[in-house]
Amino acid sequence: MAAPIDFYFDFSSPYGYFASVKIDELAARHGRQVNWRPILLGPIFKVTNSTPLLNFPLKGDYATRDWERYGRLFKVPYKRPTPFPFLAVNASRLFYWLQGRDPALAHRYAQAAYHAAFGEGKDITSAEASADVAQTIGVARTEALAALNDAAVKDKLRQEVDAAIQRGVFGSPLIYVDNEPFWGADRLDQVERWLKTGGW
Amino acid sequence: MAAPIDFYFDFSSPYGYFASVKIDELAARHGRQVNWRPILLGPIFKVTNSTPLLNFPLKGDYATRDWERYGRLFKVPYKRPTPFPFLAVNASRLFYWLQGRDPALAHRYAQAAYHAAFGEGKDITSAEASADVAQTIGVARTEALAALNDAAVKDKLRQEVDAAIQRGVFGSPLIYVDNEPFWGADRLDQVERWLKTGGW
Repeated sequence: MAAPIDFYFDFSSPYGYFASVKIDELAARHGRQVNWRPILLGPIFKVTNSTPLLNFPLKGDYATRDWERYGRLFKVPYKRPTPFPFLAVNASRLFYWLQGRDPALAHRYAQAAYHAAFGEGKDITSAEASADVAQTIGVARTEALAALNDAAVKDKLRQEVDAAIQRGVFGSPLIYVDNEPFWGADRLDQVERWLKTGGW
Repeated sequence: MAAPIDFYFDFSSPYGYFASVKIDELAARHGRQVNWRPILLGPIFKVTNSTPLLNFPLKGDYATRDWERYGRLFKVPYKRPTPFPFLAVNASRLFYWLQGRDPALAHRYAQAAYHAAFGEGKDITSAEASADVAQTIGVARTEALAALNDAAVKDKLRQEVDAAIQRGVFGSPLIYVDNEPFWGADRLDQVERWLKTGGW
């Protein structure tokens, strides 16, 4: 079987959310699996000298309108949480902790966290809120809270973010098909074409 | 007939170039014309606190690769000029000067300027080089050079850029269909869908 697609995203990224609702089916149509890889745009933006979208005058207004429009286009619920953007460090740590135990469970966690944040507009920033999401997919809340204090879990996320930067990840979503990078929910059609044709 | 599409672009924008080779036919398929409107990202980025793509580490590398990939995808010649990005003030002034005389000629000028800059990789920055492009479409070089010194021509471009900023234009290409904005060559499919369906 061909290598999985790498799907890098920040849990605080609406475009990551929109890509997340399509990516698995898209990949499956071409016999691929998806390696979900949460990252943090905060440390990445320090490297790229960038800043969250809403900090750019005019562009932030466009993005706000565009996210609403994407929700309607993709026919998925969309509600922006407060605060926004939010620090996704707890959600991301829980993801990698779960991945070490059960990759399928980590995948369900990511979907649940994205749905809570952007489908329902919930604030999933805190350790408690991230653990609440874990509980909805059957993970013991106390275990999740304990994991968030585990130095190895913290290290794992740091390593993932560092490795992503080394690879060139500068935004969310960033999707690699056999090392070919595609940035943005608006490139899913190109991702599909690449999968279908093997490139151009 | 429905209102024309507004197509804002900077002559120094590769994504603007790629959109430019598709936009007229796309609009025509839906009974629309296109109002080509060159703008300058320099003054716009001052308002949006942004900077040219290549100034963003990692993102600039991606963009460089993406432009090559777009050339192959759209099957159009692509060669990045030196310097890049370049100041498109002369090309933009010539466009608006020609538009005041003959809109069809201005349109041909824009296509010729984009082709020279990104199809052939020519440096069209200077007054002389911009006038050379005008000459290729039958405009007298001396007249073009004189127009570039005309205060009214300079004012016209300044007004266009100011009006674009007032409208919310923050990048290139920025395409408006009945006041609905779409940013990027990768949104041409959404532009087409909006034209077809009247929105979603």
